[in-house]
Formats: sequence, C-alpha cells, structure tokens
Amino acid sequence: MDAVLRGFLDAKERGAPGGELPYLTTTLRGLLTGGKRIRSILCAYGWYAAGPGREALETAIRAAASLELFQVFALVHDDVMDDSDTRRGQPSAHRALAAAYTDSGGPGARAEAHGMGAAVLLGDLALVWSDELLHTAGLEPGRLAEVLPLVAEMRSEVMYGQLLDLCTTGRRPSGDVDAALHVIRYKTAKYTMERPLQIGAALAGGPPEVLDACSAFGVPLGEAFQLRDDLLGVFGDPGTTGKPALDDLREGKATVLMAHAVRAANPAQLEVLHTLVGDPGLTRRQAKEVRRVLEETGAREAVEEMIEERRAQALRALDDAPFTRQAIACLRELARTATVRQV
Amino acid sequence: MDAVLRGFLDAKERGAPGGELPYLTTTLRGLLTGGKRIRSILCAYGWYAAGPGREALETAIRAAASLELFQVFALVHDDVMDDSDTRRGQPSAHRALAAAYTDSGGPGARAEAHGMGAAVLLGDLALVWSDELLHTAGLEPGRLAEVLPLVAEMRSEVMYGQLLDLCTTGRRPSGDVDAALHVIRYKTAKYTMERPLQIGAALAGGPPEVLDACSAFGVPLGEAFQLRDDLLGVFGDPGTTGKPALDDLREGKATVLMAHAVRAANPAQLEVLHTLVGDPGLTRRQAKEVRRVLEETGAREAVEEMIEERRAQALRALDDAPFTRQAIACLRELARTATVRQV
Repeated sequence: MDAVLRGFLDAKERGAPGGELPYLTTTLRGLLTGGKRIRSILCAYGWYAAGPGREALETAIRAAASLELFQVFALVHDDVMDDSDTRRGQPSAHRALAAAYTDSGGPGARAEAHGMGAAVLLGDLALVWSDELLHTAGLEPGRLAEVLPLVAEMRSEVMYGQLLDLCTTGRRPSGDVDAALHVIRYKTAKYTMERPLQIGAALAGGPPEVLDACSAFGVPLGEAFQLRDDLLGVFGDPGTTGKPALDDLREGKATVLMAHAVRAANPAQLEVLHTLVGDPGLTRRQAKEVRRVLEETGAREAVEEMIEERRAQALRALDDAPFTRQAIACLRELARTATVRQV
Repeated sequence: MDAVLRGFLDAKERGAPGGELPYLTTTLRGLLTGGKRIRSILCAYGWYAAGPGREALETAIRAAASLELFQVFALVHDDVMDDSDTRRGQPSAHRALAAAYTDSGGPGARAEAHGMGAAVLLGDLALVWSDELLHTAGLEPGRLAEVLPLVAEMRSEVMYGQLLDLCTTGRRPSGDVDAALHVIRYKTAKYTMERPLQIGAALAGGPPEVLDACSAFGVPLGEAFQLRDDLLGVFGDPGTTGKPALDDLREGKATVLMAHAVRAANPAQLEVLHTLVGDPGLTRRQAKEVRRVLEETGAREAVEEMIEERRAQALRALDDAPFTRQAIACLRELARTATVRQV
C-alpha cells in the first residue's frame, strides 16, 4: 500500500503543470506515514472475509489506499475545524503550512490565514484523489457501481458526525449520554469500522448477508474503539498517544465520558466540570482536578463497562458471521487490540 | 435542475439520523440559487453538441446539477481561504454560519472559528454530494466509467489553480503576465468552460474529436471570461457584479491586469502599486489611484485586447467543430455574453 500511495503521488507531482504541487504533497506524504491505518486494514479484512484470498489483491490494496487518503482529508479538515496544533505527534497540517509559508519568504502577518487556506486545499486534494484511486483501482464498471453507494454513505456519515461534533463542541458539557453516543456512532463506529469492512467485502463481491455481518461486528467494536480513544485522550500518556494530554479537555469535547460525569456529578463536581472543561487555558493542575471528578463520579468505570459490553457484542457477532475462517481469526484479534485497556 | 437539486437536498435532510443537517443545507440552498450557472449551461451545451437532443435529458440535468454542487464547494472553500465577507451579494458561508451560531446561543468568542469550521464542512458535503448526484444520474456503468476521468481531471485542475492562487496572493504584485495567465487557465478556463462542455459531451457518448473541439473552444473563451471578470472586479459596478469593488485590490489578487501594469509601470506608478495593492485597509480614494495607474500604463486596454483575441479564437474553433448546428448557435451567443464589455 505504501508503494501504491507513493506511486500515485509521484505521478501527480510529475503530471502537474508547474512545480508548486510538492508544496502540499510533502505535507500529505508526512501525514500518510504516521497513522495506524486501521481503515485500510479493515478494508483488507472485509475483502478476505468475503473470500477471494489473494485473487486481484492489487484492487483491494488500491481501494484500501484510497481510504487512507480519505482519512488524511478528514484529519486535516478536522484539525482546521478544531484549530489543533498537533496531529500524530507532529505539527498539524495548517501549522506546518503556515511555517512553510514564512520560511519561503511569505509575510508573517498572513502566515496563519495562509496555513489555514492551504490546509483546506490539501484536504480537498486528498479527498478528490481518494476518489481517483478508487475509480482507477481496476474494478470492472459494474462492480465499481456497487461499491460507490457504500463510499457515498461513508462520506455522508463521517460528515454528519463532524456536524454533530461541531454543534456540540464549545458548549457547556451536557449529561446526555445518548447524544454523545450518537456522535461517536457516526463519527467513528461507522466510518472507522463498519464501512471499511463493508467496502472491502463489496469490492470482493460479498452478498448482502456478508455486508450485514460487517455491520453487526463493526458498529459495536467501533464504538468501543472510540470510547477507548476518549479515555486515552484524558487519561492517556501523551508519549504513547501522540496527542497533547490536555487538548480534549481544553476543547470541551462532548464525549460519552464527560456526559456520564455530568449526569452523576454532585453540585461541587458539576461546578468543576462547568468551569474547567472547554477552557482553552486549562492548566495541568486543573486537568488533574477534572480527572479526579471523572473518577469520583464513576464515569471512567462506566465507560470501561461500555467498552467491555460492546467488545463482547462484536465478538458474539463473529460467532455466526458468514466470513472466511482466516478473516474471523483476524477480526477477533483486532477486537482485542483496538479496545485493550492501556492505562 | 432546480427541482433535481431541491429533491436531492430534501432527501438528504429526511434521511439524516438527526435534525442538525438543515443547519448547513439552508446555507447551501441559498448559495445554489444565486449563481449564473454557467457550468451547468455548458454541460448541457456539451450534451447537445454531441447530438442526443432530448433523449435521456434527465441524466444530463442531474450531471449538470452535480457541477453546481461542486461549484458551491469551490466557492465556499475559496471564501474561507480568502476570508471573504460576501459572495453573490450575500454574506459568505463562513460569515453566515458564524452569525447563525451566535443567534442559536453559541458563545460569541467562538463564533468566527465555528463559522470557519462549519463552512469547511459545508464545502466538503457539497463536494461529496456532487459525486453522489453524478453517480446516481442514471448512467450505465460503462458510460459512467468514461466520464469519471474527466471529472477527476477537472477537480485536480481547479485545485491546482487554487494552489497557484494561494502561492501568489498576498505577495508583492509581479509583472509576470504568463504566470498570471497560467493561474486563470487552470482556475477558470479549464474548470468553468472546457471541462463542463467535455463532461456534457462525454455523458452523451461524444467521440474524442468532439471532446477536442470542446477544448479548442472552451479554453480561450474561459480565459477571456476570467479576464473580463478581473476587469469587472476592479472597474465594475458593485451593484451589478455583487462583489465589493475593493476586494480584489485589497486582497492583492495576482491578475493578468495587475501583471501588465507592473510590467509597464514607471517608478512612480510602481510605487503606487507596491504600496497600495494588497493593503487590506485600502480606501476608495486609494483604489481610484490604483485604477488610474491601471489605465495610464495601458494595462486595462491590453487586457481588453487579450479578451478580443481569445474570443475570436474561440469563435474560429466553432467554425469547424463537429457539433450539432443548434449547439454551435448557442455557443456563439455564449461567446458574446460571457465576454461583453460592460463598463
């Protein structure tokens, strides 16, 4: 997959009418190397689940690579929307591009706006190129026509999840656990797990019952994965997560964890949450106070239980999934690693 | 086409899992009503040029509508990149969404960042929905597979044009006329004229010589159209253009007009251009001074001549284009209205 992505971007740079493109693609290449590649792995598992083995594997790899480009699009625009400074332990795209602008002699006063604009454009490029990779993956037209609606669903869903996120972030933390779950179902569970699996299976011509089993496994596991990620965002070790420890709290991210805490909090605890969560200037000491409330209200433990329930549900779905045996073994292992308690 | 777009967005709103989507689609609907729809008209002309007449016209209309959604994407992100206040005489998307956020009780301090993020997302939605409209336009899979590479080219080109724009805007005005022409070839000529015509023709199964004739007509006319637009941006009546008269000058847009002026300017005139063009606080009186330099250096007249040359070239290309007679008549008329001297 690395070779596919590298070859695709090389060709884009060679084919561009001028020499400006590497200005963006250098950043893009950096972002492509840093990730866990969970979506492309799931796409490959979906492919294997539906049975074709190594037959026409090149097609599955190009399609999986297209999901990675789509993910870069999603990350870059997400960081623009949240104005995040870092991503995967590196400066976020808009920060990196602002710095590149200044380095190349651009006026400092415009650097921030330029970085933002260039990052929006970089995300747009990654999005349309993800399309192109998929369309040129070597699928025969009829098969491509079957896969496209799933891709369209995935895109609409991730954007709908972003919208929910956008509508809630920065508001006073709410105690609505269901609303927070709704966000992660769309923003992560469907996008990160269900759809990549289904797309892989559809690429291989999997029938409806295979696609249904992809959902039955992917949605609960995806929720568990995001719940774990939210715990790591607050309690995790930044050295391991590559994510500054205070970002989620400073942003006031409306997580299930936070909703649980708000719902169970006494007036003094609620006061802590309302005052500190979402404060962009939150200190390490204040973060510690918030963490204490998250523990004392039982929110942390409640989320651990939700993770456990969902992992069990995903594993049960595998018991009678019409998948190949090898795919089931891989997915079992994934259910463990994606949700394992690391802190 | 209005009915197609309305029906598509209605279905998206009904199909969304919550009630949040109209928050974005209301703005999207507003942007869809304001434009000149030049790309969808050209797509329809391309369709007619290749001959099928009213046969399966519904498909051509859905494809044309998909270009309008793509254009909304391009406008919304362009306004984010330029931080423009208005579009088509209305507040730009990010301004409108910032205002909506405050109106709905969102904290004022986050309104600007929220508007920016929501507009990035709105553009993303318009982009992926434009895809969906095209993919569901009723083309048989083989035909769709022929059209997709043209759409991919168009997207890469418009983004490449944006990149060039981004790399030059805000820098000291340059006297490089060829560089400025290069930008408008990608940002407008290909995107606004050549590709929509070709996509229309390809939808109708037009052979390579029809697609070539679309380029021979579309590229010069598209350049002429953008050169006219640049003149209107500086000399036009804001009441007619819907565009604040000083924006292009304040932004320091690297137009062919400006490049001509820089190249022909004497030291005193150059001083005026270097001091005033790109100054965000440019006054009406200072703008008048810049306009005087654009006249006195002969830049305005040089651009008028370039428009005339390109219009003539486009009309010559029609003389032996393998198009239907009705399409040729429509395209002749378009060559006139798209480039006519209005000031």
